[in-house]
Amino acid sequence: MTTLGPGDHTRVRRLPEKARYDADTIEAIIDAAPFCHVAATVNGVAMALPTLHLRDGDTLYVHANKSNALLRAALDQGEAAVTMTLYDGIRLARSGFESSIAYRSVMLVGPTREVVEPEERRRILNGFVDAVVPGRSSEVRPMTEREERLTLLVAITIREASAKVSAGPTDDDADDAALPVWAGVIPARTVYGEPVANTDGAMASGALPVPPSVQRFLENDE
Amino acid sequence: MTTLGPGDHTRVRRLPEKARYDADTIEAIIDAAPFCHVAATVNGVAMALPTLHLRDGDTLYVHANKSNALLRAALDQGEAAVTMTLYDGIRLARSGFESSIAYRSVMLVGPTREVVEPEERRRILNGFVDAVVPGRSSEVRPMTEREERLTLLVAITIREASAKVSAGPTDDDADDAALPVWAGVIPARTVYGEPVANTDGAMASGALPVPPSVQRFLENDE
Repeated sequence: MTTLGPGDHTRVRRLPEKARYDADTIEAIIDAAPFCHVAATVNGVAMALPTLHLRDGDTLYVHANKSNALLRAALDQGEAAVTMTLYDGIRLARSGFESSIAYRSVMLVGPTREVVEPEERRRILNGFVDAVVPGRSSEVRPMTEREERLTLLVAITIREASAKVSAGPTDDDADDAALPVWAGVIPARTVYGEPVANTDGAMASGALPVPPSVQRFLENDE
Repeated sequence: MTTLGPGDHTRVRRLPEKARYDADTIEAIIDAAPFCHVAATVNGVAMALPTLHLRDGDTLYVHANKSNALLRAALDQGEAAVTMTLYDGIRLARSGFESSIAYRSVMLVGPTREVVEPEERRRILNGFVDAVVPGRSSEVRPMTEREERLTLLVAITIREASAKVSAGPTDDDADDAALPVWAGVIPARTVYGEPVANTDGAMASGALPVPPSVQRFLENDE
């Protein structure tokens, strides 16, 4: 993905000081986002679907049920745009105009194809599980053939992409900065709480310990 | 917004057990989301723009710079779809197939109009500031006429909407639940940290206290 750059669809036209085009920044935002929004036109209206994603090099995978209208449309239309947005807090200026939220976002566009080869399908579907909690796919019951067939799996080749990063103190002009108005950043982050075990089936006894994947996930979050 | 309901664009077809159509649930998700994604077609590609929003009854307001291509497209197309998604954590099943994230999302669709009347524009633009931190608009320097003119302000009448809520323990079938595989929920939430004051202008001395709006915001977050 080192050749990645913006194109007609993703070049940042407003606030170019927020734009980032380097692959490291773009990939880090894609990989840090727990979900994305895929846009496509359904029944004549452009809509955005929140869904999980998995990046493998310059390919972004998204999936949904076989009958999902929006991913079907993204396939039919031959290309799709995807947005990831991470919320980092609130940037308060001396003016409402310069105030905003802190965020990191990526917009990418590329051609779509349905992933149909069973081996690639299994590898990527297990990859989705591990993208949420690394190592989890080896702890769960193996995928059935029926489950493998029920999922619509779409690969998007990242043809162009750009990032926007809004962070740090607001850039108020000198007249505003001289005002006796407090300005600053309220940082925000996502934190995970203690896992809540299901209480059905074999777990009704409460005897199963929290598995290694979840323990590692929570340790890495601290 | 009590008459709100789904329509052709927003009825939930898959996983109807996650669907919510009552106005209270839909409004609560819209109002709790710090930002949304507006979808529109730009240069022939449906794309989703992350942006702030403000709800007033059954009207959703979004704004951007006058030259923003996506909001211009939403106006030209006469209607727009907006998605809000709140990330609530991770739901781990005994199978990868039933595992997912916990989230609350809303999809809404409605006709767009540009807000041009100066009094409505000022009221709504100040409302955006207060939607992020309640009470903040009265602490900042008043909006200038130039700032009021620079913003493209779009009102979307919420003609139809639906919510999806994915929460709680996974609903594994009895065979899976009997397996010796841990299942459960890792809850996630957004937390705010200590505000970081700007150090420019009048604040270089560090003499300005954190204002009431920010103090209240952080107290309400605890």
